[in-house]
Amino acid sequence: MPGKAVCLLSGGLDSATTLAVARRDGFQCYALSFDYGQRHRLELEAANRVAEHLGAAGHVTLSIDLRRIGGSALTADIDVPKHRSAEAMSAGIPITYVPARNTVFLSYALAWAEVLDASDIFIGVNAVDYSGYPDCRQEYIEAFERMANLATRAGVEGSMRLKIHAPLIELSKGGIVQLGQSLGVDFALTHSCYDPSPTGGPCGACDSCQLRRKGFADAGIADPLRYP
Amino acid sequence: MPGKAVCLLSGGLDSATTLAVARRDGFQCYALSFDYGQRHRLELEAANRVAEHLGAAGHVTLSIDLRRIGGSALTADIDVPKHRSAEAMSAGIPITYVPARNTVFLSYALAWAEVLDASDIFIGVNAVDYSGYPDCRQEYIEAFERMANLATRAGVEGSMRLKIHAPLIELSKGGIVQLGQSLGVDFALTHSCYDPSPTGGPCGACDSCQLRRKGFADAGIADPLRYP
Repeated sequence: MPGKAVCLLSGGLDSATTLAVARRDGFQCYALSFDYGQRHRLELEAANRVAEHLGAAGHVTLSIDLRRIGGSALTADIDVPKHRSAEAMSAGIPITYVPARNTVFLSYALAWAEVLDASDIFIGVNAVDYSGYPDCRQEYIEAFERMANLATRAGVEGSMRLKIHAPLIELSKGGIVQLGQSLGVDFALTHSCYDPSPTGGPCGACDSCQLRRKGFADAGIADPLRYP
Repeated sequence: MPGKAVCLLSGGLDSATTLAVARRDGFQCYALSFDYGQRHRLELEAANRVAEHLGAAGHVTLSIDLRRIGGSALTADIDVPKHRSAEAMSAGIPITYVPARNTVFLSYALAWAEVLDASDIFIGVNAVDYSGYPDCRQEYIEAFERMANLATRAGVEGSMRLKIHAPLIELSKGGIVQLGQSLGVDFALTHSCYDPSPTGGPCGACDSCQLRRKGFADAGIADPLRYP
């Protein structure tokens, strides 16, 4: 029987859909978000809305200090690229990559899971559209899971077998939109843009907006967000 | 040729000795400490002194939020046990265990290593005296290293093979004291107590003080700290 799960929640459509999958599968979900100095702080407001909308049993936002160690256009003073071609977006690792971000996020999820006595963690990584992010690949998720099972009290005492779920990992963006739609996710509550306008609207041109728009187009579903 | 290394530094004698090992081996050391709401904040002052004493090239202290998710006598309102027998100290996992602490710490070290283009991380874990801590075991360190090499940009691009060094893992506390002494560590700068007096002196009775005192006694070296 499913019990408690820690669900990483950014406020974007991928993590919202992942939380909806965990709820569909019967888990009591504890949503975990991070304030890591991202420029797109509207994400955090979106995470609050999504956690409530999807019936999370709890939601904690932790402040973390990735800016102190630098290294990404999402946290440092580097321009977010706009209007890049699909080829440029898929070539190499993007400058919006935050060093070891998923490892830091999953580590906190592991700590909270241990405190909650939860044996399941959900993360909305995707290896298709984010092929340039090393920590979005299946082999990485499996290696984290193996490490996590050696890291914890429960692993030693044999009382828990920790499982990392990445239900979107092999889906296209269009497939994610369709899955979210089928699970009743209200996409109007989600936020994807790396560089929103002062009034909070999406730019429509950064990699994240482009991927989102293409996903809705491929799914044949209207994106409720308004672009310039 | 050794290059840069990220060295986890708590301010205790184990991490000070580990930093001294990394310096002996020729690494340019970037010390990383955490303010995680530990009761023994004197540790952080000790970490500053030790980083300077041992010639770290840089030292960053990150504030992290483990109290928000709870679960340990070191961060929550649970009494730190005193005067426990050696048998009690080695039985099971102590209540001073902080959930997934080393995983969280190593994750930040990994992030910083990636930004610094460092391929070495040092951690002062010890499997002998801390047998109750699951994340102090060799198999855990190896699993983290494997995950880390899949997690990072460098791992994908093949430009770096990340190595986690745990040079104390098989030493007794007495052996650690002898090693530190041989490398010129000034133990008067280090701080080990879980529950120091208001004036900063060690209690002498918590598990950490007891282990430290036994280590110095076994090594036949005088501990420069004064106990009640």
